[in-house]
Formats: sequence, structure tokens, C-alpha cells
Amino acid sequence: MEKEKYDVIVAGGGPAGVISAVTARKYYPDKSILLIKSVGKGVIPCGIPYMFNSLKNPEDNIMGSAPLEKSRVDIMLDEVTKVSRKAKNITTKAGKILGYDKLILAMGSNPILPPIKGLDSKNVFPIYKDMDYLKGVKEKLSAAKNIVIIGGGFIGIEFADEISGLKGKNVSLVEMFPYLLLNSFDSEFGEMVGAKLEAKGVKLLLNSKVEEILGSEVRLSDGTTIPADMVILGIGASPNTKLAEEAGLDLGKGKGIWVDEYMRTADPDVFAVGDCVGKRDFFTRKNLPVMLASTATAEARVAGANLFKLKVVRENKGTIAIYSTCLDGLALGSAGLTESAARGEGFEVEVGRAEVPDKHPAAMPGANKIKLKLIFSKQSGIILGGQVSGGISAGEIINIIGMAIQKRVSATELETLQMATHPCLTAPPTMYPLVLAAQDAGDKI
Amino acid sequence: MEKEKYDVIVAGGGPAGVISAVTARKYYPDKSILLIKSVGKGVIPCGIPYMFNSLKNPEDNIMGSAPLEKSRVDIMLDEVTKVSRKAKNITTKAGKILGYDKLILAMGSNPILPPIKGLDSKNVFPIYKDMDYLKGVKEKLSAAKNIVIIGGGFIGIEFADEISGLKGKNVSLVEMFPYLLLNSFDSEFGEMVGAKLEAKGVKLLLNSKVEEILGSEVRLSDGTTIPADMVILGIGASPNTKLAEEAGLDLGKGKGIWVDEYMRTADPDVFAVGDCVGKRDFFTRKNLPVMLASTATAEARVAGANLFKLKVVRENKGTIAIYSTCLDGLALGSAGLTESAARGEGFEVEVGRAEVPDKHPAAMPGANKIKLKLIFSKQSGIILGGQVSGGISAGEIINIIGMAIQKRVSATELETLQMATHPCLTAPPTMYPLVLAAQDAGDKI
Repeated sequence: MEKEKYDVIVAGGGPAGVISAVTARKYYPDKSILLIKSVGKGVIPCGIPYMFNSLKNPEDNIMGSAPLEKSRVDIMLDEVTKVSRKAKNITTKAGKILGYDKLILAMGSNPILPPIKGLDSKNVFPIYKDMDYLKGVKEKLSAAKNIVIIGGGFIGIEFADEISGLKGKNVSLVEMFPYLLLNSFDSEFGEMVGAKLEAKGVKLLLNSKVEEILGSEVRLSDGTTIPADMVILGIGASPNTKLAEEAGLDLGKGKGIWVDEYMRTADPDVFAVGDCVGKRDFFTRKNLPVMLASTATAEARVAGANLFKLKVVRENKGTIAIYSTCLDGLALGSAGLTESAARGEGFEVEVGRAEVPDKHPAAMPGANKIKLKLIFSKQSGIILGGQVSGGISAGEIINIIGMAIQKRVSATELETLQMATHPCLTAPPTMYPLVLAAQDAGDKI
Repeated sequence: MEKEKYDVIVAGGGPAGVISAVTARKYYPDKSILLIKSVGKGVIPCGIPYMFNSLKNPEDNIMGSAPLEKSRVDIMLDEVTKVSRKAKNITTKAGKILGYDKLILAMGSNPILPPIKGLDSKNVFPIYKDMDYLKGVKEKLSAAKNIVIIGGGFIGIEFADEISGLKGKNVSLVEMFPYLLLNSFDSEFGEMVGAKLEAKGVKLLLNSKVEEILGSEVRLSDGTTIPADMVILGIGASPNTKLAEEAGLDLGKGKGIWVDEYMRTADPDVFAVGDCVGKRDFFTRKNLPVMLASTATAEARVAGANLFKLKVVRENKGTIAIYSTCLDGLALGSAGLTESAARGEGFEVEVGRAEVPDKHPAAMPGANKIKLKLIFSKQSGIILGGQVSGGISAGEIINIIGMAIQKRVSATELETLQMATHPCLTAPPTMYPLVLAAQDAGDKI
């Protein structure tokens, strides 16, 4: 039974949209809520690379509607094409006009399409978050032999890792910077990623730019050509702000929609969350070009709770970059500023390092080496960032560092941190990596 | 070249002693440091159960002297039997008298020997942290068929897990409380541990007390007998304070040696660290009967840094109980107060729960289920404790909770936590367990 007006309309069906709607329901049990999404079968964004090998069935990575249905959120398959803020209604592609009391824009991002000649040729695939589209890409892939991936960020390296695990594929990865994951890691970690991919047979082309995509090859700016039955684009994404701009909403200084602490746009009845929103850096308040489902869902929880009354006072002082990935058993995480970013920003820093086993004694079956780097403000001793590599547990170690950053923990506090250790699960108490690295930095602070 | 006087003498060679000495060296490069230990070949305490199955060679669990040697700490195999505070010297078992400027007592603990008849019979084995002794226990074990473990705490359950994995052993575990790990977990987690051990063939005797140990059987207080070629005692330990008491040092209200924030005893030239020291509870300031290598090493770092000048200002507001263990792939962690302990202490609490996969989508190979429980103060919303079960990563998830407790994080802050998530490493961003459990509790706060 369709309404003409909803208390809450959510525009967008990605993680930010879904969590906004679900949270709104939790806090406002009696309101009518509608979510409008343009893709029938969405996917879990970070699971996309794993649809190509690790997951037996791509459908396992579907972004299901169950949480929405459980939360009594109406779902409409359509697209919001216009917001009339004065009339407080939206218009959809199918021509419907629906009133709202509160509107949440969760429009996501669009893959960046760089100005490369031949980018529109039919063997070039940007990554769209659409199940049917990605199934098509997987089909193409099964027939392809020579695959070129453009971009050495998270999407690029994860695709390279997955595809190189398939039989009979030649994978090349083109990255314009001198090492992989440069935006999130310092070189010593980025180089570990490179070595791991090379060990799997991936051909790395660093400091390289694609000039032109031809029929079945790719030409780099230095003139070399590499065979390419298929090109995968992993360059990054930019905020989808078209609708907001057309509705006269501010973008602030960055590229995303401007919002206040509670995710309200300049119009208090219009909220915006996720990739379409500008982020303020935790350390500098500058615009931060970070797009993460974890950030998006945190924003969505703030918006959902605070739609009609500001219920949840936000303690968040800005967005931190916090990432993890895993390549063939090697887990990596980064939180906050890298050393080079911190120095580039003008911070005086001190670095602490630790290399320890992730079980103890080191002879325990299945032990991996943890490599940890922490970055502190030299004068104030406050943690600015951290990077870790190791086994599975590194994926949560980075979240300890993330919390330390968000709580502005000092090297001294980390030095006397109380933690649980166990032979099968962690480094020994005598060598817990966060403590050791803090101590290492503390010596110099 | 032996001296008659050292700047620093450390009495005790366990983790607390070793880390005190190593930290003292870091902060005071020019001081002479001696460590006196009574056991020639010590062991890593938490690795002891794993010497009986997981580790191929028990010697892999040795507590080596390399860190001491690297830190230019002299080592003496002897035992401190007397401290003369006035003369500022110690006497050893071998009759040596050595002067000190600063003394660190790291005397550890002794296994509790409960008043059970027949406890002194030759097939009963308390757990001493001594390689040669433990090798003897392992030898006995290889010949035994029926093994009875007394005590369902960490040592007891870990021995039960390890030994039940050996061929041809009947393992019984006797625990006086209604479920295992009662001091650290609420019943729903303790019962998971019981089920796991039962699935491995361990016979659980809960609500049971051993009355008498006979030649080859054990008699419980309800009259039943169980065959026992060998009895392992895992009842717990009590602080070794004999030396301190004889030297006239205060014990305060608890059983351990009294120390100030900087691990100084009533005598400012005598420090004490580790199991022999009384702990103040983080929440109540009461005496806390917790003995952990991680706590001991944290204390040792404070003592070592502050021996001659208070260099590291301590931010530690007291000791939290923080534990992890792993049974046959099931990792468990607990930090802070359990729900029942919090209620028993008089806190008004609200509980939040989450059950999510530890990879995402849940179809990712090797995904386990994470079960998380967080305990909050109802009024103030501050986190009081948490418990988690899951795969390997649960061992670090409990350390995120530990940091949250130490930084007095609120449910609201956890609800909008920024974290890294990845398909191979963590729950999805839409269902990160700490966020979900905080939200679950927040609904009720």
C-alpha cells in the first residue's frame, strides 16, 4: 500500500542508506519509512573482489533486504531524480512524487573515469555495485587470459590477488605511484603488498600511467604495451552530489555534501550520509577524501538516531582513515595518519616499531609475524596513526589502534596498557606489539 | 665478574622480573643491574598447558635469557632469602650478601594447595613454573590413562583441552561452581566452554568437590569415586609475600604486597611487581585477586621506568581483569566486570548483545560466529565489561574492549565507533559487533 507522504524517505540502498533506515526505525518506532534504491540486487561493497574467486557463488555477496523488512521499512525500486525542498517532496525516475518530513540522501559515489583514450571500449570495466553487472564481469573474466588492472589502491590489489588465484590468468597491475596503497600505508608496508602480489605472479607496473586502451592491449605513457583482453578500473570514486547540488544544497569546501555534526545539510529536514558526504579530517578538520562503508554506517547511525530530535550526542571529532585488507593470508591495517602524511601535514612525529609473533611461544602452530608501526606527536605524545601487518588478528589490532586514535591515547598510556594475551591468540605479554612500539617511540619522545 | 653491590637488584625471574630489568636498562643505561632467579630453566607461564600437546617440544616454551643478556643484565641462579632494608642488602640461599640501591621484588605466586586428604600423594601435580618439573609431569602423563583435573579455571580447562586431544586418555574435570570459568565469564559463556570440552570427551563434574585423593582414584564429597592415575591441580595461586613480610613491608588490605601508583612499597627503595603484589580494582579500588602475566608486565614497565626518578606518569586507574583463552578453535575473552560481578558489586547495569559472523559475507571460507556481550552502567552509559567468543580474532577484540574500559568509553561513543572492516578479517561494517552490542544496550539505557 503506497503512501503519498512518508515521515522519512531514504534515497539510496547502499550500506549508508540501509543503516540509516534501520536506525531510524530503532529510534522512531511509529514513523513511516521508505527507502528508494535504484539497483535491484545490490552487493556488499567490500565483498566485491571476493565474488571473483573466494566466494563459490557471487550471489553470496548480495546486499539483502532482510534487515529493512525486519525493520518495517518500505522499499521502492526506483531512483530519486529531484528534491523540492520548499514543497518537501521528491520526484522519482518513474515520475512519482512523494512527500517527506525528513529526507536522507545516501547517494553513494561514482567510479572515477580517468581521461584515458579508449576508456569507453567494451573490454573496460569500472566497478559498479550491482549484482547483475558484476556477474557479467565475472563471465567476461572467465574467458579472458590477459587482465590489466588500473589502480593500486584497495580495489586494485584485492582484484589482483583474487584473479591471480584463478587458473591461466596473466594479471598486470598498473599504478602511477612508486608503491601500492600509497594513500593508506608508508612504503615499507606498501612494498610488502607488492612482494606478495609478485609472488602470486602478478606483474607490477609501478610509476606507470595508462595512456591508451586499444583493442586488445594497453599502452603506457612510456610507450610499452601490455596485452589486455580485459581492463578492470580501480581508480577510486567521487561523491555523487548531483541531486543535492540541483536542490541547492551546499558542498562546503570539499567535493561532498556539507553536513553538520549530526549529518544535517544546510536544510535541517535533509540529512546526508555516506560516500556522497564530505568528511572532515580528525586531525586537521580539512576535507578528507575517504570513502568507507564503516564510516558510512557510523554516519548513518548518527543520522538515523537524530532525525526528529538530537538524541545521540556525537563524540566523534572527525573522520579517521581506517582500513584493512588481506592478501593470501597476509592481513594489513592502517588507521589515522601515515608517517609520510603526518610529516606532509607539518606534524613533528616520532615513530615506534615492533616485530613480534602473533602467537607465543613463536613455535605455536600457525604463528605469523606481526609488524607494527605507530606514529606519535613528538611533543604531546598523542598517537596519530598506526599500520600493522600479520595474520587474521591484525584485522582487529588495527581497530585497537583506531580506538586509541579516537580516544587520543598517549604513548605513555599504551606503554602500560592492560591487555589479554594467550598462546594461541596473541603475542606474549612481554612483547605485546602496541606496548613495545609505544615504548620504542617513548624512548625517543 | 661479580659485584658486592648493584644499583638495581631484581629478585625473581618470571615475566615481571625480566621486564622490570629490561625496562630499567632502557631508562637507566648506566646502572648496574642484577637479576636473581631460583629456577634455572623457567617457562612462559601461559604456555604451560601447550607443552603437553600443541608444542612438539616442551623446550619451545622456555623463558629464555636472551632479552636479559641483550640488556646487559647480570643473571644469578640463586634465591633471595632475606632483605635487610636498613643495610640495603639482600642475602641469598647460597649465603651471598649483596648491596642494592633499588630492589625490585618479583617473587611471583605459589599454587594454592587446598586442604584435600591425600594431596601429598605422588600422583598429584600442582603446576610449578619450572621446565624440568613440567617435563617430569609430561612423562608421567604419557603413562597415565585416567587423568583428573581439579579446578575449572583457565589452567584447568586448558589442560583438559590439551590432554583430551592426546590418544587414549580419560580426562575428568572437577569444579565446585555450577559452570566453568565462573570468575571471568557469565554462565552463557562458561557453558559454551563446558560443551566444547564435553564434545572432546572430557567428563565434567560441576558443583563437585574433591574430598580425598586415594591411590588410584579420587573421591568426591558426594561419595562418588573416579579413577585417577594422575591428578593435576589447577586451583589458582596466592601471592608469594614471605620475603616482603619478613622484611617488615606492608601487605595492605589484600593478600599481596602493598604498593603505590609507581609500584613502590612502603620503603621507597624497594619496588614490587607482578603476582606478589596486591591489585586495586579499576572500578571499586578494592583488592582484586587477579594474577596475569599481562598485568605483571605492565607493572614491571612502570617500576623499571620509575626506579630512580618518576619518569612515566601513570595513567592507570587500577587493574582490570582481562583474559583470553582458546579451546580447539573456540577463542574466548573477558575484560572488566562480568554481569554477575557488576550486579553483585551493586552496579545498575544494562547489557548489550550481538551475534555476527567474523568474516563477511558469512559465506566467506572459514567464517566463525562471534558472540559478544557488553555490560554498561545504566545511568552513566560507561562500559564496565565485555565478553566475547569467536575465532582467532576474538583474542584481539577483547583488547579493543579492554582499551574501551581503560578509557571509560560510553555506549554512545561505541555506537559511532570508526573501525576497519574487511571480508576476510572482520564482521561487516553494518554489523560490527561492538557497535551492535552498544546499540542494543543503548536502546535500553
